[in-house]
Amino acid sequence: MKLVRYGARGAEKPGMLDAAGRLRDLSAHVPDIAGQVLTDLGRLAAIDPETLPLVEGNPRLGACVGGTGKFICIGLNYSDHAAESGMEVPPEPVIFAKYTSAICGPDDPILIPRGSEKTDWEVELGFVIGKPAKYVTEAEALNHVAGYCVINDVSERAYQTERAGQWSKGKSSDNFGPTGPWLVTPDEVANPNDLHMWLKVNGQTMQDGSTATMVYQVPFLISYLSQFFTLHPGDIISTGTPPGVGLGMKPPRYLKAGDVVELGIEGLGTQRQVCENDA
Amino acid sequence: MKLVRYGARGAEKPGMLDAAGRLRDLSAHVPDIAGQVLTDLGRLAAIDPETLPLVEGNPRLGACVGGTGKFICIGLNYSDHAAESGMEVPPEPVIFAKYTSAICGPDDPILIPRGSEKTDWEVELGFVIGKPAKYVTEAEALNHVAGYCVINDVSERAYQTERAGQWSKGKSSDNFGPTGPWLVTPDEVANPNDLHMWLKVNGQTMQDGSTATMVYQVPFLISYLSQFFTLHPGDIISTGTPPGVGLGMKPPRYLKAGDVVELGIEGLGTQRQVCENDA
Repeated sequence: MKLVRYGARGAEKPGMLDAAGRLRDLSAHVPDIAGQVLTDLGRLAAIDPETLPLVEGNPRLGACVGGTGKFICIGLNYSDHAAESGMEVPPEPVIFAKYTSAICGPDDPILIPRGSEKTDWEVELGFVIGKPAKYVTEAEALNHVAGYCVINDVSERAYQTERAGQWSKGKSSDNFGPTGPWLVTPDEVANPNDLHMWLKVNGQTMQDGSTATMVYQVPFLISYLSQFFTLHPGDIISTGTPPGVGLGMKPPRYLKAGDVVELGIEGLGTQRQVCENDA
Repeated sequence: MKLVRYGARGAEKPGMLDAAGRLRDLSAHVPDIAGQVLTDLGRLAAIDPETLPLVEGNPRLGACVGGTGKFICIGLNYSDHAAESGMEVPPEPVIFAKYTSAICGPDDPILIPRGSEKTDWEVELGFVIGKPAKYVTEAEALNHVAGYCVINDVSERAYQTERAGQWSKGKSSDNFGPTGPWLVTPDEVANPNDLHMWLKVNGQTMQDGSTATMVYQVPFLISYLSQFFTLHPGDIISTGTPPGVGLGMKPPRYLKAGDVVELGIEGLGTQRQVCENDA
């Protein structure tokens, strides 16, 4: 299944794509793509999409999951991205927090914070927790995944590393977390560690990689994280970015108002964001 | 007002204390101490507590605020605590994230994670956002505060600093965020930067300080944080700890199962936690 949330921000409705890629409304079946609904997706899989109302027009898409408690990012998880950042792959995963207020739809604008000069992009494979996970093994880890999605881990590099410690400061500005378009269930993702991924700015390819070069892979990450805290339904884990971010260019190249960012991952859909100066 | 959430975890009801300190039920007036309710606390202030049902017995207290999106902690915000940690007061606030799944009631047990050997305590003044704040000035900052509370910023020092970067890993284990007992509205807090605060372990005083020695104070913090992202109703900011944490002792002294932690801040109530090994 490809699950979707659509409509005005804060009032998104649940939907799914049918076999022809048309958006169908799930409101009669579930209140949201969130919480307990993620724990029992078999209930949605049993629905024939052709029986659901077609959604007219071309509504805004919201983040593909609601009610997210934790937005956990994995840092330096591609060896070649670590190299371009001048850092080494860590001996165990670096995790950092993106505040959930940064979450937005896949095509919402990137808001460049007032005074920001180093707003950057990062295409990432995200996955969403379906069942609570605490002290789970790698062998059982994938049972806790509700689905996969595209994430742009938008980052302000000065806030992240030049403004007194801890990366969250540069990872959490409003709209710094485009998530979606779809939450794609695991049955449609043959191998999450062999997916082509790419990102363009104004039509120019900046990132062109594959999840195959990810260092710490999904089952390991779930088991690892669950040693520190319980993962809950709706939690998002973003698994790091391949090379090609603005910070790694010589000279560095950052986003400015009017720039168009497009990104996607094989089988998980695409995002498109126009950059705006935050009001 | 002293606002309270009471009852079973995940099903807390709203309440307030009356003039005699008895718990009264607010369920007939608001669904929770959360979200929009925090934006319009005048509505609750207009209620005569004597007209509210008395709550019988001695129910569990939950965190004093629900629906928290961001749990933002300020690091090294007391000059003497920075010194005991072997660090300098930073040139601007260090902020780090505590995942909201760590939030628990003021008297819930501290769960020592499997294998943890360095679980530590930190009494902190917390405040809760009542009205959205974005790019606000210091002068207008206090208009955005719903109230103040006690927080124990429980911390696993090995996870925080010895396990590959970013403090969130050591700040977010389950039950690492006791919050409450009360959300105390600003009219009852004459000066949030002149409050006595203390913490004891097994009856022995470990921390005995005052918010008077806080470096970056509440109005500055609100204005500062709001430059990076919108603060939303229910967001918690925990403002740092005075000296006396286990890490700073010679030799360091950490929590073990059976230890009893008691802490409090002048006018904001007290917490009491028994340490348990996490199952």
